[in-house]
Amino acid sequence: MIIMDKKLKLLEVFKNQYSNRDYTVTHVAPEFTSLCPKTGQPDFGKITVEYIPDKLCIELKSLKIYLNSYRNDGIFYESVTNKILDDLVSVCKPRYMKITADFNVRGGISSVIVAEHKKINN
Amino acid sequence: MIIMDKKLKLLEVFKNQYSNRDYTVTHVAPEFTSLCPKTGQPDFGKITVEYIPDKLCIELKSLKIYLNSYRNDGIFYESVTNKILDDLVSVCKPRYMKITADFNVRGGISSVIVAEHKKINN
Amino acid sequence: MIIMDKKLKLLEVFKNQYSNRDYTVTHVAPEFTSLCPKTGQPDFGKITVEYIPDKLCIELKSLKIYLNSYRNDGIFYESVTNKILDDLVSVCKPRYMKITADFNVRGGISSVIVAEHKKINN
Amino acid sequence: MIIMDKKLKLLEVFKNQYSNRDYTVTHVAPEFTSLCPKTGQPDFGKITVEYIPDKLCIELKSLKIYLNSYRNDGIFYESVTNKILDDLVSVCKPRYMKITADFNVRGGISSVIVAEHKKINN
Amino acid sequence: MIIMDKKLKLLEVFKNQYSNRDYTVTHVAPEFTSLCPKTGQPDFGKITVEYIPDKLCIELKSLKIYLNSYRNDGIFYESVTNKILDDLVSVCKPRYMKITADFNVRGGISSVIVAEHKKINN
Amino acid sequence: MIIMDKKLKLLEVFKNQYSNRDYTVTHVAPEFTSLCPKTGQPDFGKITVEYIPDKLCIELKSLKIYLNSYRNDGIFYESVTNKILDDLVSVCKPRYMKITADFNVRGGISSVIVAEHKKINN
Amino acid sequence: MIIMDKKLKLLEVFKNQYSNRDYTVTHVAPEFTSLCPKTGQPDFGKITVEYIPDKLCIELKSLKIYLNSYRNDGIFYESVTNKILDDLVSVCKPRYMKITADFNVRGGISSVIVAEHKKINN
Amino acid sequence: MIIMDKKLKLLEVFKNQYSNRDYTVTHVAPEFTSLCPKTGQPDFGKITVEYIPDKLCIELKSLKIYLNSYRNDGIFYESVTNKILDDLVSVCKPRYMKITADFNVRGGISSVIVAEHKKINN
Amino acid sequence: MIIMDKKLKLLEVFKNQYSNRDYTVTHVAPEFTSLCPKTGQPDFGKITVEYIPDKLCIELKSLKIYLNSYRNDGIFYESVTNKILDDLVSVCKPRYMKITADFNVRGGISSVIVAEHKKINN
Amino acid sequence: MIIMDKKLKLLEVFKNQYSNRDYTVTHVAPEFTSLCPKTGQPDFGKITVEYIPDKLCIELKSLKIYLNSYRNDGIFYESVTNKILDDLVSVCKPRYMKITADFNVRGGISSVIVAEHKKINN
Repeated sequence: MIIMDKKLKLLEVFKNQYSNRDYTVTHVAPEFTSLCPKTGQPDFGKITVEYIPDKLCIELKSLKIYLNSYRNDGIFYESVTNKILDDLVSVCKPRYMKITADFNVRGGISSVIVAEHKKINN
Repeated sequence: MIIMDKKLKLLEVFKNQYSNRDYTVTHVAPEFTSLCPKTGQPDFGKITVEYIPDKLCIELKSLKIYLNSYRNDGIFYESVTNKILDDLVSVCKPRYMKITADFNVRGGISSVIVAEHKKINN
Repeated sequence: MIIMDKKLKLLEVFKNQYSNRDYTVTHVAPEFTSLCPKTGQPDFGKITVEYIPDKLCIELKSLKIYLNSYRNDGIFYESVTNKILDDLVSVCKPRYMKITADFNVRGGISSVIVAEHKKINN
Repeated sequence: MIIMDKKLKLLEVFKNQYSNRDYTVTHVAPEFTSLCPKTGQPDFGKITVEYIPDKLCIELKSLKIYLNSYRNDGIFYESVTNKILDDLVSVCKPRYMKITADFNVRGGISSVIVAEHKKINN
Repeated sequence: MIIMDKKLKLLEVFKNQYSNRDYTVTHVAPEFTSLCPKTGQPDFGKITVEYIPDKLCIELKSLKIYLNSYRNDGIFYESVTNKILDDLVSVCKPRYMKITADFNVRGGISSVIVAEHKKINN
Repeated sequence: MIIMDKKLKLLEVFKNQYSNRDYTVTHVAPEFTSLCPKTGQPDFGKITVEYIPDKLCIELKSLKIYLNSYRNDGIFYESVTNKILDDLVSVCKPRYMKITADFNVRGGISSVIVAEHKKINN
Repeated sequence: MIIMDKKLKLLEVFKNQYSNRDYTVTHVAPEFTSLCPKTGQPDFGKITVEYIPDKLCIELKSLKIYLNSYRNDGIFYESVTNKILDDLVSVCKPRYMKITADFNVRGGISSVIVAEHKKINN
Repeated sequence: MIIMDKKLKLLEVFKNQYSNRDYTVTHVAPEFTSLCPKTGQPDFGKITVEYIPDKLCIELKSLKIYLNSYRNDGIFYESVTNKILDDLVSVCKPRYMKITADFNVRGGISSVIVAEHKKINN
Repeated sequence: MIIMDKKLKLLEVFKNQYSNRDYTVTHVAPEFTSLCPKTGQPDFGKITVEYIPDKLCIELKSLKIYLNSYRNDGIFYESVTNKILDDLVSVCKPRYMKITADFNVRGGISSVIVAEHKKINN
Repeated sequence: MIIMDKKLKLLEVFKNQYSNRDYTVTHVAPEFTSLCPKTGQPDFGKITVEYIPDKLCIELKSLKIYLNSYRNDGIFYESVTNKILDDLVSVCKPRYMKITADFNVRGGISSVIVAEHKKINN
């Protein structure tokens, strides 16, 4: 497992040229995979990152590398969703961000976790 | 039929690591089956559990076993939907929960039952 | 044509076990057919009944027989939709009810009629 | 029930202007309904007529009226499919004809019946 | 081109039997065609009429004939949408009406125009 | 588990009125469920029965009851498919029969088993 | 109605640069409309032209104008399909050509006509 | 790359005949392509322009030519979306406008950018 | 990377109870992932295994573990498809086997590789 | 326009490791664009390359760059399809190859061109 601090360093940002305006950026990554922390078997899902940038935008290729870094980590659905939100918020400090994690069927049940962040005093 | 008290014991919960934040968990179980209380013939449906956890999350495998326990029970659509809501609320005490039960065609008619719970003084 | 009073007698209700809670029941009947009052030719449509039960629920098999009773009646789209609403409201006195009637293409045009009822002093 | 001989008289044909060439005509009638001969409850299905005309084509409006004539007949899936084939073959004597009858779910099971006719010495 | 006054005369209405209740009627006509006023080439689109009737309903067959009357008229997307709204409002005086005109791809671009009317002092 | 001999007795047949002609009957049962013989957990699938009747047709309601009888049997995918084929062939002796069993995802993998029977000296 | 001889003149062809090889060209025109010869009401359909060019290809814009020329002609489904085949064959003399005309629902029934041509001594 | 000032000159407008009414115009252009400013490789996306016209409407063909002008420009997703909004607002001064840019998968991730403009003192 | 010999040992087989009959087994695994041998970036695809068993069937859970073993291997599309075929053939010696590997978009292009094996002297 | 000889040099191949077996490789490129040779306006389409490799496989990234090279070329549908086939055959000499070019709607008509190559004395 990659040390969690290291994950953050994979993320890059760039300056938002249109910070005068609220607008929405959505990145959909349908090829997310991590491991079940109990069984070690792979989990598969789709991660959707939706946000209103403030001063900074997330660089797309670094987002891909960041998400790929979970490939061999054992982590629960609820935790990975909230952790991705915490990490992305910490690097780009958006006005708003929502993470939707849509996991494939396990034991006949599929699961979706949705977490969001709103900037204080925005 | 499994004694109803026994059903509750099938459900397991785990601590919500992110209780500081309202977020939504949705589990979709398209392989639900029970029996018609009138005819004894099998009913088939999809159960969707959507909730905002408070202190506790529902463990996924125990949810599957709990839902499977209705397999040989004779129970009405309206009752099973409300009972699942009552049971899940009683074990994980969520901030919010909604159960959607989407039953297959019987006599040319399909049916959907939706019931929700909101925590008092939340 | 079945005398309209007779239609009402086809509908059966049962006691709502969960009247302490507002919840929604939806029945979708895609096999509705009646006759065009002008041409006598058959019309085909899908009737969706959505309601919040109060003291009583509509029994599913009687609903099917009630809807089948329109098979050889000549009646306009707008009338059949509003009449089904009136009849169902009169037998189960719901907190809320909506009827959606979605009719197949006639003369290159399809039609949808939606009527709803809200209980007074609810 | 309409006397079966009467049904045949509902069908009209017209001269095939292009009988020098084998070509295919397909009519799809998704609004077919008849009655179950056991229970009297309505059955719903889609009838597809596919044929290579010889000297005669089936007139479309008369086909619709012919199919509508089954509305209040009690008849089995297998019988209605083969009877439609026999009737249409007898009035238009096609080089080839296939009837596909695709019936809606009953008791959780949907059914399709396919019967075809090939002209002898064609 | 049919003189515009003549178009209005194609529309027929009938008395709304359920004017005591607000309900919605939607007619979808996917076979609309007119001509481009610049090039004379045909345009194709889908017209959706959604309204809450007051005293009068639009008769369906006359609506079809009215829409067909644009077949050889040269008229802009924006104009035809607003004109259909004006005409239908003038004949049936609805409590509410919305026209959605969804035009096919031209030059790689498809277009949708939506206009609505609300009754004053309703 | 129902004794296997008992299963066969659930199936009923009726006389094929059109045995002079080869035609095809297809029944699709999307609500099949049995148990995994290893884990005891429920399996879900869709059973498609396609056949050319000879002297006898399978009665539809008895087919449903026959398929339902597997509900609490532990049996492998490959076995249940071939056994259904053997049973149905033995009761209706068709000119041709094919069973397609389409099972839901287990461990991220879905499975389809197809077996067919051709009458000897047909 | 455009004189039929005039229709042919609307079609243009260009030299096939790859006549050394059999290859297939398919043009799909979903915006075809003509008039019903009985009622004068518009018919709508999709025309698919599939062919193997020999020495000549059909120019796409002229094909569009040719198909548009049927806009105000009253003509039967079977006739228009065979006539388009005859016309296109006469101007481009293809090694093979198939016309598929897929007409919208009329009286609850949709229709598809398919006609094909094979070059003699090819 | 076309000088940015030149792009604006590609856009044409025409007088809104129905400026007395708020109505919505939506143009969907699924054939947008530009170049990645980093790699020079082509990007592909769908641009949706939704607006409420005030005095002026955007001429459709000029919109197409304007969008085509990005074909060989290297520009970021976020920039092109906001720039199209700025340009279209400057030429037609709408009461409201929203640009949605839906870009194809790159590195396993698809992206959507949404920006909107509201007229001040409208 | 797991030593290739080790991969084979992950696969288990069981005795085919119905080897007297040719029948088809299809397993669809949509969660396959390996690494690009050039860039080290993850590839994602769907592996479909279709075969006619002879004496032996592939055990489903072992197939899943076998496919999961490629998770951290760098291997080309063409190679992985042919290698899976070789491995599965060597352990279950089927009468027929086909592997279809359907890989997600890379650089705007998706790819499908299909390889099959037929038993000699079958 | 890139000199045609130059295009060929963009394509790279690699050794087929499994040339002992006939197997099929399919690459689907939905982001193809070129220019109309008459109007200069962009055309958009999807190119599908399906082939059975002999000694050599087409390298995927070079295929992408090769297809991108048509971006600013004016070329007819029929020509581009046949030329891609000729070029790919000349560099990888496959046992079989088929090119399917599926072009977007122009003037209300979409087009598909299919050309294939079979190795002589294979």
